[in-house]
Amino acid sequence: MKCKKCGERASINMRQHRMALCKDHFLEWIPEQTERFIKKYNMFTRDEKILVAVSGGKDSLSLWDILVRLGYKADGLYLGLGIDGGVNYSNESHRLTEEFARANNLTLHVVDVEKEYGHSIPVLSEVTHRGYGKPCSVCGLTKRHEMNRIARDFGYDVLATGHNLDDEAAVLFGNTLQWSADYLLRQGPVLPSAEGLARKVKPLCRFYEREMTAYAIARGIEYIYDECPFAEGATQVFYKESLNQLENVRPGTKLTFYLRFLDARQSGELFVQRDKDAAHIHPCAKCGQPTSAPELCSFCRMLEKASEVTGL
Amino acid sequence: MKCKKCGERASINMRQHRMALCKDHFLEWIPEQTERFIKKYNMFTRDEKILVAVSGGKDSLSLWDILVRLGYKADGLYLGLGIDGGVNYSNESHRLTEEFARANNLTLHVVDVEKEYGHSIPVLSEVTHRGYGKPCSVCGLTKRHEMNRIARDFGYDVLATGHNLDDEAAVLFGNTLQWSADYLLRQGPVLPSAEGLARKVKPLCRFYEREMTAYAIARGIEYIYDECPFAEGATQVFYKESLNQLENVRPGTKLTFYLRFLDARQSGELFVQRDKDAAHIHPCAKCGQPTSAPELCSFCRMLEKASEVTGL
Repeated sequence: MKCKKCGERASINMRQHRMALCKDHFLEWIPEQTERFIKKYNMFTRDEKILVAVSGGKDSLSLWDILVRLGYKADGLYLGLGIDGGVNYSNESHRLTEEFARANNLTLHVVDVEKEYGHSIPVLSEVTHRGYGKPCSVCGLTKRHEMNRIARDFGYDVLATGHNLDDEAAVLFGNTLQWSADYLLRQGPVLPSAEGLARKVKPLCRFYEREMTAYAIARGIEYIYDECPFAEGATQVFYKESLNQLENVRPGTKLTFYLRFLDARQSGELFVQRDKDAAHIHPCAKCGQPTSAPELCSFCRMLEKASEVTGL
Repeated sequence: MKCKKCGERASINMRQHRMALCKDHFLEWIPEQTERFIKKYNMFTRDEKILVAVSGGKDSLSLWDILVRLGYKADGLYLGLGIDGGVNYSNESHRLTEEFARANNLTLHVVDVEKEYGHSIPVLSEVTHRGYGKPCSVCGLTKRHEMNRIARDFGYDVLATGHNLDDEAAVLFGNTLQWSADYLLRQGPVLPSAEGLARKVKPLCRFYEREMTAYAIARGIEYIYDECPFAEGATQVFYKESLNQLENVRPGTKLTFYLRFLDARQSGELFVQRDKDAAHIHPCAKCGQPTSAPELCSFCRMLEKASEVTGL
């Protein structure tokens, strides 16, 4: 197979685009496409301050790399979650993130959840009994809270995450199986800013996971190969497998599923248009972050419960 | 496992309902539930004339059996499609349907497509090049046309088909992967009657395929075991497998997927409400059936093309 741009031997074939590229042209193509998506979905401008949530994985490190190469003002945020899982997952991902920041001379914020709040994610999950024995829901809640906090405290306009198409399609798939209006009417590449909340964007949402893996490897980015040890058996992983099977039979299924959903939402032909200010939002009495709960936000309620149980 | 109703040994366990039943209670339960669905979705009354589309398979024969047991006025319609596939599929399904009608003293209409229109379904598909080498789209088009024709000519109020939950969930799954507004806003247990078109209903749409198999066997209905030889490799079969994998991990996934979709459509929280008379419908210049095409309906256009190609 030959590179579509130069005719040399191709390194990657993207069946859904009917396009093969050599390593050099692939390394050009990914940032070009990212720039196209940033503009298409009005994610941010070169004047805005961007905070990239970096986990040490291929997606978030590649995102940071791409944004900086494209000339955007992007700092990083690493959250230490205290996840071990026999592979010292959190320590290793922290080390790789620090190394990437240092090698590229970039600013990295680091928050250690245990130091900040007294408990690691697995402990918070265990003592609060949230999430049916999996820490994933506590982890998501904590990450959202901390990303918002750092963005607010340091004056970032935009929070960027490394979600790729496989992630987004799997979330959409799960929301569709449940026909959850709240989630379906909100999911997309951009979540607009609201009172006290930075805009959230997903610049990689149209790249397949394998494309991001190829990018990280071709670019020589050292990233943590292991999946989070808690991901195994998670519903999302299962949805990803389902979609991969469909994709194998019909290349492009995942991309079509996600893009047509976005089109259908925008056209107004299929979905109702929701008033985005419909939810009643006010600041949490403890942390000041916006919440629709009566007094304390979910994160602060979780911390209170942990404190009751552990006495810490 | 014990029968929920009588405590005897159960014959079938329905995980999505957390209920096991013995053979006798299962044979009662299926018609009771069918009656419940008929009423819930306002499918038809005991005064209306019902035409059941019968293929000789477990679903349609069971549907006919159930409707007659429930005291509805239901005649049958068998369409001879001329499908062989090495198992003499059409002949065998015709024989079983005739036997069922005779044994139960029921009225059966029979239409042989080749005798009526000069070509069998596989030939029509081949000469018209519709459906990418599969006769399924020609078969669907022809069945819809002929069911409507017989319903109109013999004055039936309602057309009932044996689609089960697996069928409906697979269709919904396919329409969802494409986010097809036209299909998603129309799919449901009842398609209202329109100018020149009988109401269409699917009384078995909430039963799993395995429940219908169990019903046919427990009732001693002789049906054609073979799938249509053209079904293999069809997209629908593939979607069914995908849903079955999800169902295995989370019993009830298929039912939830279908029922929440119906709820979401009805509540107006997620989907727009479509004006059902939006399409511009007029009678086909040749057959008189309603169509939105400029002059001839799709079926008559297909016949014209077949006639041009074959000279017949």
